Amino acid sequence: MPARKISDSTVRRLSHYLRILEVLEADGRTTVSSDDLAERGGMTPAQVRKDLSHFGSFGKRGLGYPVPVLRGRIADILGLGREWSVCLVGAGRLGAALYQYDGFRRQGFRFVAVFDNDPAKIGRRWGAVTIDDVADVARVAREREVEIGIVVTPAEGAQEAADRLAEAGVEAILNFAPRKLSVPPEVALRDVNLVIELEGLSFAVTHRGKILASR
Amino acid sequence: MPARKISDSTVRRLSHYLRILEVLEADGRTTVSSDDLAERGGMTPAQVRKDLSHFGSFGKRGLGYPVPVLRGRIADILGLGREWSVCLVGAGRLGAALYQYDGFRRQGFRFVAVFDNDPAKIGRRWGAVTIDDVADVARVAREREVEIGIVVTPAEGAQEAADRLAEAGVEAILNFAPRKLSVPPEVALRDVNLVIELEGLSFAVTHRGKILASR
Repeated sequence: MPARKISDSTVRRLSHYLRILEVLEADGRTTVSSDDLAERGGMTPAQVRKDLSHFGSFGKRGLGYPVPVLRGRIADILGLGREWSVCLVGAGRLGAALYQYDGFRRQGFRFVAVFDNDPAKIGRRWGAVTIDDVADVARVAREREVEIGIVVTPAEGAQEAADRLAEAGVEAILNFAPRKLSVPPEVALRDVNLVIELEGLSFAVTHRGKILASR
Repeated sequence: MPARKISDSTVRRLSHYLRILEVLEADGRTTVSSDDLAERGGMTPAQVRKDLSHFGSFGKRGLGYPVPVLRGRIADILGLGREWSVCLVGAGRLGAALYQYDGFRRQGFRFVAVFDNDPAKIGRRWGAVTIDDVADVARVAREREVEIGIVVTPAEGAQEAADRLAEAGVEAILNFAPRKLSVPPEVALRDVNLVIELEGLSFAVTHRGKILASR
């Protein structure tokens, strides 16, 4: 599996294929054609065949891909054939929604720690997890062998949270705080900025008339 | 303002500059250099100067950019000099977190309607808004002149929600449901898929050792 040749956009498409294959498998489908995968995923059949050619040949030409096998292969490639220990820094409303998000649980992402700086929240239980003081991130995350940290703090506390997660040996950070974080090169980082997504839409709507008019 | 020449990644950087400028303005700063903006944003100074050159010249060479003027210009370009009427389809936990998300409110995104298909939720009040039946999306969204719809349904209901929003004349959709939506060309669409973000990280962590080893 030539992982270093796989671009970020290919990885995103693999996740999309996985979603589609999970639905097909739940429906009892045993094979799927590249045309069908393409149509369900909004890609071209050529793109699908190219993406999946990375993973060796499947079955016989003209019969399509075997759904459970392909689903399993893609899940393995994405690192999903196991559980991941995840912590959440920031126990606000968005943090609570992420903590309870079924989609994470289903793919094996398991919350083992939650942190906040609000004395009223520290010590409270969220299901099986007790909220810890954000000052203890480095120690607690190391003890519980956290692999992925999700930062949902306000902009102010985010860099410090990232520093402590890196100190604890966390390997990847998903950042929802509205600022850029700097992390050591060995820590993988992704940003999700909800306001930026909405601003992209307000930009598109605002300029649509002009864009169309100037064509 | 040559909007049609501005790429999606430039629009995202404009949102980043806006975040930084808001912080600087709140701190009482009157000017900022491209070097300072670049460092705070994690970009190169050349990139900053190139992005901001689209918007005409600001002040005198060597004095930096005037913070409040630049903040206002970027906000205008992003379509933020006004309020946006937003509706939410899906009143689950993630929907509730988005509904109460301060970041949206601060930039003028105002929720005027919320929809769900759960009879136990329909009729309940969320602040000033009463939850409506998802079957009424097309009518209610049109009546309240919704401009942006946020879809936070499970995968199953998402396409129908998008169809009804488009029918109501909604101009843009932010989709959190884990499936691709098809919308008419006049509707702007962005996807936020939280599981895909985490899977990108599990992929990166899983293959990191091999990637490093093969260098």
